[in-house]
Amino acid sequence: MNRRMVVFLLSRILFFEALLMLPSFAVGLIYGEAGTAALCFLPVVGVLALLGLLGLKKPKNTAIYAREGFVTVAAAWVLMSLFGAVPLWLSGAFETFWDCIFEIVSGFTTTGASILPSVEQLPHCILFWRSFSHWVGGMGVLVFVLAVMPMSGERSMHLMRAEVPGPVVGKLVPRMRDTAKILYAVYAALTLILIILLWAGGMPLFESICHAFGAAGTGGFSVKNAGIAAYDSTYIHVVLSVFMLLFGVNFSLYHLILIGKWRNAVKSEELRTYLGIIAAAVALITVNTFTRELGVGLSLRNAFFQVSSIITTTGYATVDFNTWPALSKMILVLLMFFGACAGSTGGALKISRIVILFKAGRQEVRKLLHPRAISVVRVEGKPIGADLLRATLAFFLLYIVCLALGVLLLSIGGHDFETNFTATLACLSNIGPGLGRVGPTGNYGFYSGASKILLSFEMLAGRLELFPIIMLFSPITYRHKTK
Amino acid sequence: MNRRMVVFLLSRILFFEALLMLPSFAVGLIYGEAGTAALCFLPVVGVLALLGLLGLKKPKNTAIYAREGFVTVAAAWVLMSLFGAVPLWLSGAFETFWDCIFEIVSGFTTTGASILPSVEQLPHCILFWRSFSHWVGGMGVLVFVLAVMPMSGERSMHLMRAEVPGPVVGKLVPRMRDTAKILYAVYAALTLILIILLWAGGMPLFESICHAFGAAGTGGFSVKNAGIAAYDSTYIHVVLSVFMLLFGVNFSLYHLILIGKWRNAVKSEELRTYLGIIAAAVALITVNTFTRELGVGLSLRNAFFQVSSIITTTGYATVDFNTWPALSKMILVLLMFFGACAGSTGGALKISRIVILFKAGRQEVRKLLHPRAISVVRVEGKPIGADLLRATLAFFLLYIVCLALGVLLLSIGGHDFETNFTATLACLSNIGPGLGRVGPTGNYGFYSGASKILLSFEMLAGRLELFPIIMLFSPITYRHKTK
Repeated sequence: MNRRMVVFLLSRILFFEALLMLPSFAVGLIYGEAGTAALCFLPVVGVLALLGLLGLKKPKNTAIYAREGFVTVAAAWVLMSLFGAVPLWLSGAFETFWDCIFEIVSGFTTTGASILPSVEQLPHCILFWRSFSHWVGGMGVLVFVLAVMPMSGERSMHLMRAEVPGPVVGKLVPRMRDTAKILYAVYAALTLILIILLWAGGMPLFESICHAFGAAGTGGFSVKNAGIAAYDSTYIHVVLSVFMLLFGVNFSLYHLILIGKWRNAVKSEELRTYLGIIAAAVALITVNTFTRELGVGLSLRNAFFQVSSIITTTGYATVDFNTWPALSKMILVLLMFFGACAGSTGGALKISRIVILFKAGRQEVRKLLHPRAISVVRVEGKPIGADLLRATLAFFLLYIVCLALGVLLLSIGGHDFETNFTATLACLSNIGPGLGRVGPTGNYGFYSGASKILLSFEMLAGRLELFPIIMLFSPITYRHKTK
Repeated sequence: MNRRMVVFLLSRILFFEALLMLPSFAVGLIYGEAGTAALCFLPVVGVLALLGLLGLKKPKNTAIYAREGFVTVAAAWVLMSLFGAVPLWLSGAFETFWDCIFEIVSGFTTTGASILPSVEQLPHCILFWRSFSHWVGGMGVLVFVLAVMPMSGERSMHLMRAEVPGPVVGKLVPRMRDTAKILYAVYAALTLILIILLWAGGMPLFESICHAFGAAGTGGFSVKNAGIAAYDSTYIHVVLSVFMLLFGVNFSLYHLILIGKWRNAVKSEELRTYLGIIAAAVALITVNTFTRELGVGLSLRNAFFQVSSIITTTGYATVDFNTWPALSKMILVLLMFFGACAGSTGGALKISRIVILFKAGRQEVRKLLHPRAISVVRVEGKPIGADLLRATLAFFLLYIVCLALGVLLLSIGGHDFETNFTATLACLSNIGPGLGRVGPTGNYGFYSGASKILLSFEMLAGRLELFPIIMLFSPITYRHKTK
């Protein structure tokens, strides 16, 4: 293991986190919370900047391999969360440090699960930090660091593979750095448009910015106690629904559109499946939740918002879907497994994996009927290799194992099955709200400290696509000291 | 498709079912229920015998392939269930014919889920038929038919593969028929020993026979309203616990022991994993459910019985584990996925698959760390081919899909998540009791007719290892009329 290079990368990332805290400090100054903001952020910024000094000198040997990539990514996210929790702790709004860790891991992983029953009493600088963590975590911190740091292209693939969601990370352009820059530019532009649209719809600017961050990162933290339900505006609900869906699309499709290849973008099998699933889920839920008081319009609006929010793993809610009929709740639980497109800011299994899994299952049935026939699984028109097929099936297995293990360990502390199952699923898939006690009107505050740490690891496992976190706990990683 | 051969096989099986009903009729005569028994069984026996005439003449072309194998097995089980439900219907103890179908499918698939709140008022002949269906279904009807029917060995593998539980069906001896005979001889001998042991322990003979059938087939129907909890005898509880575990062992190991190769039997990786999981589950549940009133002895006895019952997918209960702490309940739910050994009468995923899945997951982590290293997955000391590895992963995927689809469709009728989830799992894994409203003291009577048919298909899918039932509903099966 090239330890010097790992330390170098980690210190760069921590220095970068110091920079990321400055906007929150500035927000504190703007809203006349100079004292609070200085107390909460400046000590951490100082420590992070000092740690950043370790990264001043680049090691001679910059070679990193898969193992270094996974270790760096896992360690970076754990360290970022530990330091990111400190401002929350210093604000005095949280009871224990575990609560702060849970809250900021929930932020960076774009889960949006909160332990707070109400948020409106928090200072603006803390509210901004929570929401900003979604925006930072959505696209990935390492991707950003790569974008601003000169590094040899091939090596950095190991880092990007470990952080960017989806079964296949392709390069849009030959140089990795340029790919990262394009992705971040699209991300920033879409976020800006959403802020303007929300503001234009009557939402105060600060709230527009925070909610746009939550939607862009597919996070889900709100600055209102009632969440998006606080705004009784069809315009705001529909704009947010549409933009959540937009942030759930593979960003490389936006790149295709920008360079004029929009025909290729529209042909995408993943995009079509994504839209098909959404249409089916919205239709079923609209019919299932329809009541005469609501009418078709409101039933449709609520169904569309909740489906967009859950499939993109954002987690905003405009109604308490905990009170919906069993079928509608189960459709949402199913969407919690699906997630959005690969290469988006969404979590969960991702639609491209669902497509591969569906075809793999169908192939297995075919093989039994025609044992001697040669069948090839095609996705996006291209044949899928046996390795990717097996890897995707194994990923599904590990996803279910992470879920089952989480539910089992969470049960040590008691609580009912529905709550424990959906809490683990909502954390692993980076959604936020589940059913039962962790439904849209509930929160995660009642879980014990140990349970909160467990759920924090579920969130990290989900955000980093399992492997970096599995490796953190696997003896295989530590067996051979040298490669 | 060789339709004549399929019809020939089906009529043979239906004729065989007529013979299977005769013992129940005899039980009716013994217990002075001649009128009821004649009314319930003789009409069905007559119709089945007539249908059996279709199988008098063997077709010239006896060649059958995979497709015929799956179609025959699926159709045989559906037909057997339809005719097997008629005696229950004629007895007048059930409200609807759906109830009768659910009950007998639950019998043949060795699930043991009942829609009846109490059974003691049923005539003996019906009680015997319910329990006997477990014994028949446990080892498989087609296997028995194969054992008594002369057929070319290689062809019949297609039938046996589709019916016998487990990822790999090996032949114990060169001729398939002889393999089937050995398996049934072991099965009958173990059942006889259990009947004698229960009878010797003070259980009335009729009840001993019925409960031995339930344990042998890993079914779970009881002839007492309170189930095995009706017998407050440590001896009976322990004897049943041990025998449930024995029926959960791969029967080929008994063959190894019989021919003196007991060393090979004891070395079995699957057997050791099975026993290890049981020991761990019993220990954890004993600690978790311990109370001063119960004491260590009773806590251990209850934990041992419930773990044996659930992991072997039998479903007998001596306590209402619905009232256990969340952790113990979750351990049982996990065991509901695991199941017993391949080649036993148990259901669910089977321990051999769990072993393969565990190693496949570990291999995936290794591959990411050492992308160029060649790693081989070994089970029972032998390397596992890429095909079996992929097939096992795909089987796991389809198992979860069957579960998820079942829970989703069941939710149309309402009811809570815990009940719907564990009801589907308990049916798919052929266990019987779940949690919530379908717990050990509950029953499946409250579900709608449509839900009962859905759950019946889940039971059949689980018993026949998914594929025959998936193919029944898959357009792929009907796409090409000729091969």
